Amino acid sequence: MNRRRKFWGWGWEDERADPLQVQAAEAALRGWLGMHELEVAGPPRLDQLSLRPPRIAPPPALEPLISVTAFDRASHCYGKSYRDLIRALRADFANPPDLVAFPANESDVVALLDWCSGARVAAIPYGGGSSVCGGIEPEVGESFIGTLSIDLGKMQKVLEVDERSRAARIQAGVFGPALEEQLRPQGLTLRHYPQSFEFSTLGGWIATRSGGHFATQFTHIDELVEALRVVTPAGLIETRRLPGDGAGPSPERLFIGSEGALGIITEAWMRLFVRPRFRAKASALYADFANGAEAVRLLAQSGLNPANCRLLDAREAMMNGVAGGEHAVLLIGFESHDHALDGWLKRALELARDAGGEVQQSSIRTSDDGAGVRGGSADAWRGAFLRAPYLRDELVARGAFVETFETAITWDRFRALDSAVRAAAESAARESNGGGTSVLVTCRITHAYSDGAAPYFTVICPARRGAELEQWDLIKTRVTDAMLEHGGTVTHHHAVGRDFRRWYERQEPAPYQRALAAAKSAVDPAGVLNPGVLLAAGARP
Amino acid sequence: MNRRRKFWGWGWEDERADPLQVQAAEAALRGWLGMHELEVAGPPRLDQLSLRPPRIAPPPALEPLISVTAFDRASHCYGKSYRDLIRALRADFANPPDLVAFPANESDVVALLDWCSGARVAAIPYGGGSSVCGGIEPEVGESFIGTLSIDLGKMQKVLEVDERSRAARIQAGVFGPALEEQLRPQGLTLRHYPQSFEFSTLGGWIATRSGGHFATQFTHIDELVEALRVVTPAGLIETRRLPGDGAGPSPERLFIGSEGALGIITEAWMRLFVRPRFRAKASALYADFANGAEAVRLLAQSGLNPANCRLLDAREAMMNGVAGGEHAVLLIGFESHDHALDGWLKRALELARDAGGEVQQSSIRTSDDGAGVRGGSADAWRGAFLRAPYLRDELVARGAFVETFETAITWDRFRALDSAVRAAAESAARESNGGGTSVLVTCRITHAYSDGAAPYFTVICPARRGAELEQWDLIKTRVTDAMLEHGGTVTHHHAVGRDFRRWYERQEPAPYQRALAAAKSAVDPAGVLNPGVLLAAGARP
Repeated sequence: MNRRRKFWGWGWEDERADPLQVQAAEAALRGWLGMHELEVAGPPRLDQLSLRPPRIAPPPALEPLISVTAFDRASHCYGKSYRDLIRALRADFANPPDLVAFPANESDVVALLDWCSGARVAAIPYGGGSSVCGGIEPEVGESFIGTLSIDLGKMQKVLEVDERSRAARIQAGVFGPALEEQLRPQGLTLRHYPQSFEFSTLGGWIATRSGGHFATQFTHIDELVEALRVVTPAGLIETRRLPGDGAGPSPERLFIGSEGALGIITEAWMRLFVRPRFRAKASALYADFANGAEAVRLLAQSGLNPANCRLLDAREAMMNGVAGGEHAVLLIGFESHDHALDGWLKRALELARDAGGEVQQSSIRTSDDGAGVRGGSADAWRGAFLRAPYLRDELVARGAFVETFETAITWDRFRALDSAVRAAAESAARESNGGGTSVLVTCRITHAYSDGAAPYFTVICPARRGAELEQWDLIKTRVTDAMLEHGGTVTHHHAVGRDFRRWYERQEPAPYQRALAAAKSAVDPAGVLNPGVLLAAGARP
Repeated sequence: MNRRRKFWGWGWEDERADPLQVQAAEAALRGWLGMHELEVAGPPRLDQLSLRPPRIAPPPALEPLISVTAFDRASHCYGKSYRDLIRALRADFANPPDLVAFPANESDVVALLDWCSGARVAAIPYGGGSSVCGGIEPEVGESFIGTLSIDLGKMQKVLEVDERSRAARIQAGVFGPALEEQLRPQGLTLRHYPQSFEFSTLGGWIATRSGGHFATQFTHIDELVEALRVVTPAGLIETRRLPGDGAGPSPERLFIGSEGALGIITEAWMRLFVRPRFRAKASALYADFANGAEAVRLLAQSGLNPANCRLLDAREAMMNGVAGGEHAVLLIGFESHDHALDGWLKRALELARDAGGEVQQSSIRTSDDGAGVRGGSADAWRGAFLRAPYLRDELVARGAFVETFETAITWDRFRALDSAVRAAAESAARESNGGGTSVLVTCRITHAYSDGAAPYFTVICPARRGAELEQWDLIKTRVTDAMLEHGGTVTHHHAVGRDFRRWYERQEPAPYQRALAAAKSAVDPAGVLNPGVLLAAGARP
C-alpha cells in the first residue's frame, strides 16, 4: 500500500471531503455566518518548505532507524488541531523534529531512548499524529540539543490472541483498521472507535485516555487495558495480565494518560469483545436540549448500559443531517454478541419518552455475519462523524474558525456549565471578530455516566485571517476558563499535551503534580521524554 | 451506643459465633481433620497485658485528640489476620502504637501529620482495623521515635448528597452500616459489601481497593470513587468531581490502593445506586468445578452484568450449608431499581445450562419497599458469609489453622493456577504438621471478569500449637509463590500491607516501584506515612 498520509492535514494525501458536502458547507458559511468571500488557502507544498537542517546526527548504530526526509520531518511537526492546521496552511514548519525514528521493535525503542538520555535529545513518542493538544509537537524548551520524533508505526502486529480470556497482546503502533482486521478471523473486536480511528494507534489511545464509541460503561480505553509494556529510560515496565487486582495503586493507570512523558508504550494486552450479532437502535426527538439531557441521565443511571446514547442539539443534528434543526436528537443503541436486545430497547424508549421525547424510529436486528446493520439517524450520524475532519480542513482553508471543546461534568452542574460555555464561546468568538459577527455554537453529549456527562462543543465563526492563532487563544481561553470555573475538566478525551497544560496545572492539586513529576524523575531521570507535555519541561518535584 | 469492638479479635465484645454453629464446626474438625482435643485458647484479658509505656508524648495542643488507654492501644496493635489472632490469643501485644489519635475533623488530621513529620513519629492511618495483611500494625523499622495510630472513626458523616448525580460526599471514617443508614432516606445506597462491611470504613475500602458484593462490573470500590480529599504532609489533595476524565493519569487512582502510604483519605465523593426494587436469582449445580467455572466465564463475557455470580466448590458449598457436598454451586443474581430482570435471568440460566449446570431454583421478585428478598441458597450463603469471621476466631481458638488466599487470573490460566494453589496449600499444610494430617482446601470464585476470575481459597488444618506463625509462613509462602508463578496477583482485594510486601516486590516491575517511591517522597518527604506498607520503610526512588 503506497497510500501516504498528508504531511500537513487530515487523512490520506489522495482523499478530501466530498465536493457536494463542501458545497453545502460553503453555502452554510455564507448563509449562517455571512462569509461571502471564501478564498481557499492552498495546501502547502513540500518543495515550498525550507526546513531547518537537523541540529543533531544519530550515532551510526541508530542510523538505519532514522529518517531526515522533508516529508517525514514535516509530517512529524504538528498534530491535527486547528492551530496545527493554520500553521501548516501558512507553510510555517519552523520547528520540525531534527530526526524521525521508525523503530521496528522494542529493542530499537530501548536503544533510541538510551541515546536520547545520554545525549540530551528530547524524545517525542508518536503514534498516528492525531493529537489536538500539541502532544507530539517538538516544542521542548531550551535544554536539549535536538529533538527526535519516535514513530511507532512499524510496530503494528497483533502478537497473540487468547480466545478464552477474550484478550490479545498487541503492538502499540497499530492503527485502528489494521487492528480490527487482525482480530476479525477470531470473531473478536476491540470496538474502540474514536473519531481519529483510521489515523490513530493503540499506543496513542492508551497514552491519551482516548474516548471510543461506547457511550456508557467502556467510555475510555482505560477499562480495556489488561496489561502494558512500557519502555522507560530507567528500564522496562511489564505489568501482569490481571482481570482485576488489589495490589497497591494500579500500575497501568499511572501510564494510561501519561502522554509519552513517563515512557513509551510498546505493547498492551487488551480486553476484547466478540463481534456483536444483535443490535437494537432508535432515535428520539426533543423540543428542548435540556429534556434530551434528562433522558441521557435516566438512561445512564438505568443500568441498561447502552452502547450508543448520544444527544445532538438541534443545530448539531441539522449539520449532521439527522434532523431538520427544530429538535435535539437522542441516538440510542444496544449491541450484543450474546442476546437479543428487545427488552433493553423497550425500557430505554420508556425512559426516553418519560423525559419528553418523541421516538422516531427503532429497529431490532440480528446480523448473522457480524456485519453492521445500517440505516437511520444513527448511521447518518456515524458516517458524518468519521468524515468530519476532512470537511473541517476544507472549512478552515476557506477562512472559517472551527474548533471543538469537550469536558465532563456532574449532572447537578450540567446545565450551568452548558450555558456558561456557550455564552463564553459566543462572546469570545464575536469579540475576536470585532463584534457583530455571526457565531455557530453547537453541543452534543458524547459519553454518559451515572453521575454526569461529557458535553462536546463545536464553535464555528469567521477566522481572523492572519491572526488565527491569537483568535484561537482568546476563544480557547474563555471556553476553558468557563469549563474549569463551572467544575469541568480541561479534557474528557483529547488529552492535555503542551497546549492545554496551563489549565491542567490549575485543575490538578499541586501536591499531585509534584508526585507526578517525582514519578517521572524516577523513570526518566534525564527528563528527555516528551518534555513540556503534562509537566513543564524540566519540572522537578 | 456503648457497644465496643473486641480489642483482640473479630467484631463486637458482646457477640460471638452461634453456639450451634460452633458445635457443628467442632464436629467437622473432629470428623474431617481428626482433631479430637479441641482445647480452647484465651481470649486475652486486658488486665493481662503489660503494654510497653508510650515512648513519646504528644505536644500539648494535640493532647485532646490522643488516647493512651490500654484498650485503645491494644485495639490498634493488630488487624484481623490469622497471624494477628494468634498473637492476640497469646496475649502478645509487644509492639503497640505509642499513642492513638482520634481526629474529629480534617484540621486535626493535618495537625497530627505535621507533628509526625517534624518529630519523626510514624503515622499509621486506621479505619476499622480489619486489615488481614499487617496494614495497620505499627511495625515501622528503627528510624522513628515512636508510632501514632490515627483512627478516623470520629469522621463518620455523609456531608452532602447530590441526588441528581447519584453521588455523595462522605467522611472516610464511616463504617458500612452507618454509611448505608445515612443514605437510606434518599433511597440511595453505595452497595459495597465486603465481608468486613460491619467493621470497616469507607476510607479503608478506598485505601485497600476493597472488593464488594458486585461479582461483575463494579467489583472493587475503585469504580465507585468520583473524587477524593487526601491529606498529605506536603498539602491537601482535593480532586475534581468528574464523571469521566482524560486529563493525565488519574489522580484518584494513585491514591486508591495507596494503603495510607501516600496520604490520609479524609473524604470522598462516591457514586451511588438507587436501592434495587427488582431482583432475580437462581442457583445451579455442577458435578465438576471446572464446568461451573466455565459457566462463570460465559456469564462474565455475556454483557449481562449479574450482581451475583459466585461459584462455590463442593466442599465450600457444603461448609456454607448451600448444598450437600456433591456439587459445586453457582449463585446467580440480578438487581435493579429500574427494570424487571426476567430477560436477564432467562438468558443467564441458558448459559448456566450450556456449561452443564442443573438449575435448582429461581425467583424473580419485586419488593416495593426496597428491602431484600430473602430465601434460597444465595441467602444462606450471604448469612454465613458475613458471620464467618466470628466462627473463624472460634476455630482458631480451638487449634485450627484457618486462612484464606485470594488472587485473580486470566481464564486461559485459571485451571492451572487453581490446581497449583490447591496442591501447594495441601502439601504445605501437611508438611507443616509433619505429614499425614488431613487438610481441607476449598475454593470459590468471588468476582468475575470478561478476561478472568478471582478465585478465593480457604485452607483449614490442625495448627501447630506454639509454632503457628512459622506454620503460617510456610503455607502462605508456598501458596503465594504458586499464585505468582502461575500468573496471579498477590491479592485481588485484601491489599498488600507489610505482610505481603515481599511478594508485591516480586510482582511489580522495579521501575514502577521506584516511581511509586518517588511519588511518596514528593507527598511525604519525611517518610512518616505508614512506613513499611507497600514500600520498605525509608525506601528511596
